[in-house]
Amino acid sequence: MEKGTDFTNKNVTIGIIGMGRIGNVHYKNLKRISNVSIKYIADIIATDEWTAKYNEAQKIVTDYREILDDPEVQAVLICTPTDLHPEMTIAAAKAGKDIFCEKPVGFNDKDILEAFETVKKCNVKFEVGFNRRFDKNFRRIVDHRKNDDIGNEQILKITSRDPEPPSMDYVKRSGGIFMDMTIHDFDMARYITDAEVDQVYVAGNVMIDQKIGDAGDIDTAIITLQFKNGMMGVIDNSRQAVYGYDQRIELFGSKGMSKADNVLDSTTTFSGESDVSSDKPMFFFLQRYIDAYKTELESFLDAVRGNHEVECTFEDGIKAIRLAQAAKKSLDSGKPEKVQDI
Amino acid sequence: MEKGTDFTNKNVTIGIIGMGRIGNVHYKNLKRISNVSIKYIADIIATDEWTAKYNEAQKIVTDYREILDDPEVQAVLICTPTDLHPEMTIAAAKAGKDIFCEKPVGFNDKDILEAFETVKKCNVKFEVGFNRRFDKNFRRIVDHRKNDDIGNEQILKITSRDPEPPSMDYVKRSGGIFMDMTIHDFDMARYITDAEVDQVYVAGNVMIDQKIGDAGDIDTAIITLQFKNGMMGVIDNSRQAVYGYDQRIELFGSKGMSKADNVLDSTTTFSGESDVSSDKPMFFFLQRYIDAYKTELESFLDAVRGNHEVECTFEDGIKAIRLAQAAKKSLDSGKPEKVQDI
Amino acid sequence: MEKGTDFTNKNVTIGIIGMGRIGNVHYKNLKRISNVSIKYIADIIATDEWTAKYNEAQKIVTDYREILDDPEVQAVLICTPTDLHPEMTIAAAKAGKDIFCEKPVGFNDKDILEAFETVKKCNVKFEVGFNRRFDKNFRRIVDHRKNDDIGNEQILKITSRDPEPPSMDYVKRSGGIFMDMTIHDFDMARYITDAEVDQVYVAGNVMIDQKIGDAGDIDTAIITLQFKNGMMGVIDNSRQAVYGYDQRIELFGSKGMSKADNVLDSTTTFSGESDVSSDKPMFFFLQRYIDAYKTELESFLDAVRGNHEVECTFEDGIKAIRLAQAAKKSLDSGKPEKVQDI
Amino acid sequence: MEKGTDFTNKNVTIGIIGMGRIGNVHYKNLKRISNVSIKYIADIIATDEWTAKYNEAQKIVTDYREILDDPEVQAVLICTPTDLHPEMTIAAAKAGKDIFCEKPVGFNDKDILEAFETVKKCNVKFEVGFNRRFDKNFRRIVDHRKNDDIGNEQILKITSRDPEPPSMDYVKRSGGIFMDMTIHDFDMARYITDAEVDQVYVAGNVMIDQKIGDAGDIDTAIITLQFKNGMMGVIDNSRQAVYGYDQRIELFGSKGMSKADNVLDSTTTFSGESDVSSDKPMFFFLQRYIDAYKTELESFLDAVRGNHEVECTFEDGIKAIRLAQAAKKSLDSGKPEKVQDI
Repeated sequence: MEKGTDFTNKNVTIGIIGMGRIGNVHYKNLKRISNVSIKYIADIIATDEWTAKYNEAQKIVTDYREILDDPEVQAVLICTPTDLHPEMTIAAAKAGKDIFCEKPVGFNDKDILEAFETVKKCNVKFEVGFNRRFDKNFRRIVDHRKNDDIGNEQILKITSRDPEPPSMDYVKRSGGIFMDMTIHDFDMARYITDAEVDQVYVAGNVMIDQKIGDAGDIDTAIITLQFKNGMMGVIDNSRQAVYGYDQRIELFGSKGMSKADNVLDSTTTFSGESDVSSDKPMFFFLQRYIDAYKTELESFLDAVRGNHEVECTFEDGIKAIRLAQAAKKSLDSGKPEKVQDI
Repeated sequence: MEKGTDFTNKNVTIGIIGMGRIGNVHYKNLKRISNVSIKYIADIIATDEWTAKYNEAQKIVTDYREILDDPEVQAVLICTPTDLHPEMTIAAAKAGKDIFCEKPVGFNDKDILEAFETVKKCNVKFEVGFNRRFDKNFRRIVDHRKNDDIGNEQILKITSRDPEPPSMDYVKRSGGIFMDMTIHDFDMARYITDAEVDQVYVAGNVMIDQKIGDAGDIDTAIITLQFKNGMMGVIDNSRQAVYGYDQRIELFGSKGMSKADNVLDSTTTFSGESDVSSDKPMFFFLQRYIDAYKTELESFLDAVRGNHEVECTFEDGIKAIRLAQAAKKSLDSGKPEKVQDI
Repeated sequence: MEKGTDFTNKNVTIGIIGMGRIGNVHYKNLKRISNVSIKYIADIIATDEWTAKYNEAQKIVTDYREILDDPEVQAVLICTPTDLHPEMTIAAAKAGKDIFCEKPVGFNDKDILEAFETVKKCNVKFEVGFNRRFDKNFRRIVDHRKNDDIGNEQILKITSRDPEPPSMDYVKRSGGIFMDMTIHDFDMARYITDAEVDQVYVAGNVMIDQKIGDAGDIDTAIITLQFKNGMMGVIDNSRQAVYGYDQRIELFGSKGMSKADNVLDSTTTFSGESDVSSDKPMFFFLQRYIDAYKTELESFLDAVRGNHEVECTFEDGIKAIRLAQAAKKSLDSGKPEKVQDI
Repeated sequence: MEKGTDFTNKNVTIGIIGMGRIGNVHYKNLKRISNVSIKYIADIIATDEWTAKYNEAQKIVTDYREILDDPEVQAVLICTPTDLHPEMTIAAAKAGKDIFCEKPVGFNDKDILEAFETVKKCNVKFEVGFNRRFDKNFRRIVDHRKNDDIGNEQILKITSRDPEPPSMDYVKRSGGIFMDMTIHDFDMARYITDAEVDQVYVAGNVMIDQKIGDAGDIDTAIITLQFKNGMMGVIDNSRQAVYGYDQRIELFGSKGMSKADNVLDSTTTFSGESDVSSDKPMFFFLQRYIDAYKTELESFLDAVRGNHEVECTFEDGIKAIRLAQAAKKSLDSGKPEKVQDI
């Protein structure tokens, strides 16, 4: 995010569509960012009390189309359930708004591709919310790659384990572990390496909760990635690491290895008679990636201002889905499977 | 900060007096805190443009007494130069406002004690801004002490080194290294151990910049603390650690040792042909203690609400000054010196 | 290696067969071990000068059968090239000697199984030299598993990268990366988990030196393991990590994770203006595993004395080969392959 | 220890005088070193059984003067109680033997100086056994200093804490904590910095065992060092760190800081529900410094061979004693005290 001489910091007027957990995360971060006005918050369940609760926003509405009708609004954040993403993206693009859309960009291929085409045709900016791209630790790996410290990339390793499984309700409508959880890792695999995956092999199992298996999903997986450039990668996923949110990445190449370790609750250790103990990795993803979420929005706003290109494009959003689809196919077939193009 | 059953989260109306660097830090943090209204910002150089710049505040004034006259204001933050602290404290206390005052509480003993007495007589709350008490890493050491993991305290070690010396202008009006820089470490020595220091011995020298010596100050020091309970401590200070802001504490006792290490810029390492390299400690104190500053204000606001006692009292502010005074005396005499009571 | 009440420390008389690199390693370690006499060293190229060079040994011979003929000798160490292991094992077993044999136990399945049967029939002790089982760091993981700290095992990860590729001569007669290098990791996969592998999938490539590819081998691999008990594992191998010998293992389960990190050249770091640098992992396997080699021999000698069972059996040696064979098959077929039983 | 072109590796014939704990350490290490013959072991309590027990030695004697009378012996290791060091040093020097003498070089100033003069007059080599100088971790700090990575030295910090207090018998004849324990740290202060100490200030106390106080000694101390070149240092000592042998050093200067951390029992950690735990520092000094003791002897033997200068001289031995004497004086006077020259 080198800032050129034409860099502007002019005010951007936005609307937030959907005020669930992630909508609230973005709302709080926007309060910490200069030169952005939240003109609207839209949510179908919004009430009069929201005016006080979200006093940073000028107007609370229940119909997101009110936002799209307002010519003052430059950009919208789409934070609604996944199945609504394509339709809202299409409407926002047609209204000429720049779009920040939470991941994944949709569930249904046909809808996703229609939204993708509409965004291209309407020539609006579109960013997918893969927040981990904005984590400073992972960015340091990319710095090392860009700086040619790594040399030829050979092995990528991603450890990504949740602290605890989601509710069974959530599991059932999540689209499965690959579309819900691994999709972040698939995006990171492409972001960290700047390379495309050719085929995927999955060894997966239900090891944590049989109810997840009964719902047709798995909770533990090792995913091998074979890239088009010959390098290889592996992702290991678990829905439950009792010691916290385990998020590590290493990139190994001919000139060296860059490795991002977990962020711990504190740097403090205790040396006692039995052992030396330190704090665990931060437990909750919102806490772990609190700064990444803010940086993500700042980057999007700068893209809206025209200061740089969007850092995580619609294509990126679709390619992560293609990887998730290939993973599901491999789990079902028990064999490596090719990754489909857009 | 255990929150009891009577815990309230009612709104607190405040005014900020002085909008220099630290005033701005507090202003930004207040924007991230719920249930607090900034009714006033007072600064003798405030202009009309500040209304837009500090739009979270309702009124911008040049005379802080306007704030004190407003019965709606419950508390003030005093962020002006040190020599003004006592007079403003006295005025605010007489106006019945609770007070958060930046460190040190003053330069002149007579003024400080007058302010101290006035605060007691007026029965208002008073907190000194020793932000490091609110750093989560150092708090973990205190947790270990309170939890009796440490056993009998025996040795305290504080490493406190700045990334670069301040300007010579700043050095000249700083009150000297002990009053300006070590004062934080003196407060931490008392906070971490919950014990009082009996005598102080200083080995100090000018090793970084002769201009600091010409101004009658030193830039490097090792300070031995002998506590009333028999335990011992050592602080080492430097005005310039080229690798960043070096802030480490360890507390050693009969049952174990708790040790807080530096916070690094990232958790990412690079393993190359010559060595394994990791990021440096965060360079700047505002970045290093960004969360501590926010926690500090939250704690003060909760004290104003009556949820708990003030966590860093006027006595604490004075005792840190007494330690700085004893250190200066020891540097001059070349011998250990007793620490004066309040 | 709990030592029971019947523990004896009586002297053991041994002979070493083969004095190449690994024979010399064992010779030096034996000098540090009490209650063992090296009666013979046998090597086809031994000369009179060896008497002075290996003065710990009583006799230097060129024909290993001289050792087998001596009734005073209780045990032999077979340290010759792999293709000679089965024939020497059979001869030693028939002579009633306990046997320590370097890995792998042989190349040819028929010979290996004949040796295996002969050892069983002759009822002599037989230990395979998988030295990593005796590394104190990896043993701590096993301690944690045995202590039920891990809970149900779910994910095993082994990183195993050499500091530099062997000579092309060595590559050509090595039996391929799986039989030469990964065989250690296959043994560790079984040792760390105490579980058996059901099927193996390999993504492998030539990324370091095309000459290795020209010789029909690969130099980089990611190997997925699916265990019979449902858990999964992954091994990543590289013939060249420029930062040294990279040997890490982690075992993740329902109750926690145990992780062994690399052993560095020193614990010393340097914090400078650009970064904080630490020493690299130890470069050479003999240095990294110097203590493990000694512990391995001590354990074998204690097995010979009857103090405990052999810690790494002939079956273990064969099963590691079965894993290597399945890996080769998967690399060729591009699909996951079942692991054959003994 | 750069080895020049004239480097020789000829055999050295030695005798060990005194076979207590440290004599045994050296005996075991000598078995691992090439080109050295142990011709004699002398101990007043030696018995016939020692011939088998110490079978590496050719002769076991009770009178050390037998060793000195043998012209084949080039060098002796003096490992007897401290009060015998000067008399044995004098006898060995007069017999023309090179001398390795355990620390401290003596208790009584008059005897020490007589031995010192005799060694100079007889022109034999003399090395004091300050083993920590040969620890690879601390040597890395010296490497950084010599490489000018540190720049101008400003602050030295030595943490040196024993895992448990010695027996009261030992305490009583130890010469006090400074002469027995801190003497190593005093030597390290000079070795690490290559600078001389001007004055010393001690804050010391009895915090672990009142019986130590009753014997006229202390068990906990913070010792400030002021060097002739203006830099400062601090040593903190405790007779009891429940988590193991705590041996850390850091050297801070204008260009950076080098820091040697503890050596842990293993590199393995366990991440569980409550915390992440790692192994403790090695508990026992013989284990912690096992390699340093070997390197120390190798260096001495190379000095005997004429390959390099003695690395830890008689002067070094005396200067460490001068520092211990100044520390005792400061503890008694409560003031900083000058360090006497030889």
